[in-house]
Amino acid sequence: MAQHIALYPGSFDVATNGHLDLIQRAAALFDKIVVAVATNMDKLPVFSVQERVEILKEMTQHIPNVEVTSFDGLTVEYAAQIGANCIIRGLRAVSDFEYELQLALMNRELNDEIETIFMVPSVSHSFLSSSLVKEVASMGGNISDFVPPAVERRLKEKYAKTRNTTCDPKSE
Amino acid sequence: MAQHIALYPGSFDVATNGHLDLIQRAAALFDKIVVAVATNMDKLPVFSVQERVEILKEMTQHIPNVEVTSFDGLTVEYAAQIGANCIIRGLRAVSDFEYELQLALMNRELNDEIETIFMVPSVSHSFLSSSLVKEVASMGGNISDFVPPAVERRLKEKYAKTRNTTCDPKSE
Amino acid sequence: MAQHIALYPGSFDVATNGHLDLIQRAAALFDKIVVAVATNMDKLPVFSVQERVEILKEMTQHIPNVEVTSFDGLTVEYAAQIGANCIIRGLRAVSDFEYELQLALMNRELNDEIETIFMVPSVSHSFLSSSLVKEVASMGGNISDFVPPAVERRLKEKYAKTRNTTCDPKSE
Amino acid sequence: MAQHIALYPGSFDVATNGHLDLIQRAAALFDKIVVAVATNMDKLPVFSVQERVEILKEMTQHIPNVEVTSFDGLTVEYAAQIGANCIIRGLRAVSDFEYELQLALMNRELNDEIETIFMVPSVSHSFLSSSLVKEVASMGGNISDFVPPAVERRLKEKYAKTRNTTCDPKSE
Amino acid sequence: MAQHIALYPGSFDVATNGHLDLIQRAAALFDKIVVAVATNMDKLPVFSVQERVEILKEMTQHIPNVEVTSFDGLTVEYAAQIGANCIIRGLRAVSDFEYELQLALMNRELNDEIETIFMVPSVSHSFLSSSLVKEVASMGGNISDFVPPAVERRLKEKYAKTRNTTCDPKSE
Amino acid sequence: MAQHIALYPGSFDVATNGHLDLIQRAAALFDKIVVAVATNMDKLPVFSVQERVEILKEMTQHIPNVEVTSFDGLTVEYAAQIGANCIIRGLRAVSDFEYELQLALMNRELNDEIETIFMVPSVSHSFLSSSLVKEVASMGGNISDFVPPAVERRLKEKYAKTRNTTCDPKSE
Repeated sequence: MAQHIALYPGSFDVATNGHLDLIQRAAALFDKIVVAVATNMDKLPVFSVQERVEILKEMTQHIPNVEVTSFDGLTVEYAAQIGANCIIRGLRAVSDFEYELQLALMNRELNDEIETIFMVPSVSHSFLSSSLVKEVASMGGNISDFVPPAVERRLKEKYAKTRNTTCDPKSE
Repeated sequence: MAQHIALYPGSFDVATNGHLDLIQRAAALFDKIVVAVATNMDKLPVFSVQERVEILKEMTQHIPNVEVTSFDGLTVEYAAQIGANCIIRGLRAVSDFEYELQLALMNRELNDEIETIFMVPSVSHSFLSSSLVKEVASMGGNISDFVPPAVERRLKEKYAKTRNTTCDPKSE
Repeated sequence: MAQHIALYPGSFDVATNGHLDLIQRAAALFDKIVVAVATNMDKLPVFSVQERVEILKEMTQHIPNVEVTSFDGLTVEYAAQIGANCIIRGLRAVSDFEYELQLALMNRELNDEIETIFMVPSVSHSFLSSSLVKEVASMGGNISDFVPPAVERRLKEKYAKTRNTTCDPKSE
Repeated sequence: MAQHIALYPGSFDVATNGHLDLIQRAAALFDKIVVAVATNMDKLPVFSVQERVEILKEMTQHIPNVEVTSFDGLTVEYAAQIGANCIIRGLRAVSDFEYELQLALMNRELNDEIETIFMVPSVSHSFLSSSLVKEVASMGGNISDFVPPAVERRLKEKYAKTRNTTCDPKSE
Repeated sequence: MAQHIALYPGSFDVATNGHLDLIQRAAALFDKIVVAVATNMDKLPVFSVQERVEILKEMTQHIPNVEVTSFDGLTVEYAAQIGANCIIRGLRAVSDFEYELQLALMNRELNDEIETIFMVPSVSHSFLSSSLVKEVASMGGNISDFVPPAVERRLKEKYAKTRNTTCDPKSE
Repeated sequence: MAQHIALYPGSFDVATNGHLDLIQRAAALFDKIVVAVATNMDKLPVFSVQERVEILKEMTQHIPNVEVTSFDGLTVEYAAQIGANCIIRGLRAVSDFEYELQLALMNRELNDEIETIFMVPSVSHSFLSSSLVKEVASMGGNISDFVPPAVERRLKEKYAKTRNTTCDPKSE
């Protein structure tokens, strides 16, 4: 039997409990999961690529067959490079699905040996999105149910800094 | 490394080139694919369960790691019984997605050890559905681009018989 | 310049103001519109194919470049037969769109010379569907805003008869 | 202040924990909620209208401002009759939304004084549908997480009977 | 009976006839509607928060149980602060629905006492969006059918100014 | 018979094989197709309006009844100006559909004489979008299957320049 390696690429700014749930589920289906931060996906990230890799490593240290890296360039080229023939993507909503379908078909055109598969996070995480979590955190809302402790701690630090530097007496 | 077995359940009445494409793609990702005809899914099937199993065996005989069977009862129970921890479902359209998502979440509630993954058929098969193929065949349209020869031959026989028995001079 | 003929096929059981609106809009874009009742589309129609043709003729008699007919068999074959290179379909909702897209792509496979185009009814008719109108009419609701007089009169007669024959004192 | 009465109409064959969740949420927003079984909605119901009313009463007996009834005819007419100016409908998925939107707009045309509002069940019930629950129950699956005890008990009795009467040694 | 207060939060840049329609419908269902401009929602607003509050007050002065305010921070916290147990959101399209569903579930996690309900604007306003109205206005199109006079007047002034300051002889 | 002119407006930054396919299909249905680059649609275009017009002319030079131009201002006003009573838009996905429906209804409000019709590109182009093609090209991926030679050549030149000017040793 050949070893089955799956690539889970993404922006992961910020990683949520939904991402963690998906990684755990995928780790049961394949011999190795490579979680890889795409360096060119997010315009105004909260965390640097290096921070995102550190967070993902901390979050997944209890899952033996998970590796965390980063990459730039085409996802299918990176998948081929690491010996993965499978790309994992999470689906929560119809709007996810349409874009992901388009991306999967484009990636298949670029390399027909690499297959995209879709997985569904736990229903209790189905409403979580990185942008919504960042919005709540930026307003001082409690995000401890939405993200792993590794993220919550760092996100609080980030927004504490932002609030001090942009200190606006009117809106405090 | 444990052996990875994936269950691909369905009605398969009728199996199309889209189903075949998905089976081929799945066979590259897992050690074994069990294609299983669900005996209680279709109200007025064109083919009996036994015929559908035969057709699927004929269609997939060139793929070594594929087995064809049938089952009744809950899909997750059958998956557990055959040692599969993964159910494969094809996604073509948004309307597929919503029902499939609901089914996947229900199945997860029934057995959290069995994971549903979604795959996308080749774009050239994205418009194919069993019901549309049956409708075209029933009107005498050419379906040779839509189904494997094993299906086309049998479907022609079926509709030839139907036309003779329900012979309606007015509509001929 | 060649004459541009467009086929507008459908079940038309029952024709609504949304259908009429679409026919009027299409008549402004093409030299001739053939409105054609598909004889094999509806399982339990309220009106016979002949009645539906009569109703559509009555509804569209004020539009000079509209013809009403019926057909059975494949829509693309009928289009080719009458010299139409264009099939018109109405779109109201996303769920319409998905099925219609699938149908359009299937029809293109069957005959690449026949193109499907989609038009949108007036926003004030966007919620109208034949089945909803029939449901309201069957409960004695007022449908005069939803269907042309030619339909309303006949639909009242139909449901008046039904109510008399299935006479259920409890529900009257 | 006028009393605010909301009508929650439906087929309720079978009532799920999703329905109960919605009734509880609605009861906090309005002075009185009338849960009403529509007698003409389901073709082949598992429970009679009378049984469904009994089940809903048992399920909601702990919520003081809830009444359970049944009705036939147009929903907007029944709403007007009981002094409700508001119809509540649950939304889980996009496909729900499209049909519900169409229904809401049609009802508004029939009576502009009656407003439809949409509510979302708890995310942990978002995948529940009456038909899926019935399907699982008919295959002997465990539905205790999906329906109130009042439904589970009766549903088990129903399917136990069905299995005995249609007794098929091959499928047991 | 307790007083039922509903919060209708939004960006309202620019308020359309669709917003006004929804406010009027909501005002019939609850004892008080608080329309509240969220100060942190729009990146490049046409109107300041103060202007948007003024416009909404002018638009709704004929509806006695409507108040207009502004707020920053989490919507659920503001709702709790003003004694509202209900957030109203308008739904026009499927794409609205998905984002709104996600937001509603997130808000429920943050405060389970605050319920989100969805309402549908008049069908004749179903295609209206603030961004589309702004686009049409910026090109000098007639928007008098889409927005209340209070908005039209101010929007004309805004774009008249913009045109003068960015005066580009080539594009005039 | 009057001459039927259809306007196909768009950003066309970058034009893909999907656009070309649609133009060819439309050219068979109408006497003349005017492909028109909207000058105010794209924020950060890769190509200038003039370049886009040149590319479209080169791409469509083999289709006799196609003209290429550019315009600013309202699309319906430009349609009226050139004698078109029909606007053509391509539909690939549900998310396209919703925005396009909104736009079509808004345009109808602005000028009820101009009708929007929707066409579907070839299924093999259904996953193509200008933004995805640009993303792949910017990463050095092979886009020769996705765009006409006229686009590929120019796009390579653009990104070659960009890479040189923003030369970042770390990411090369």
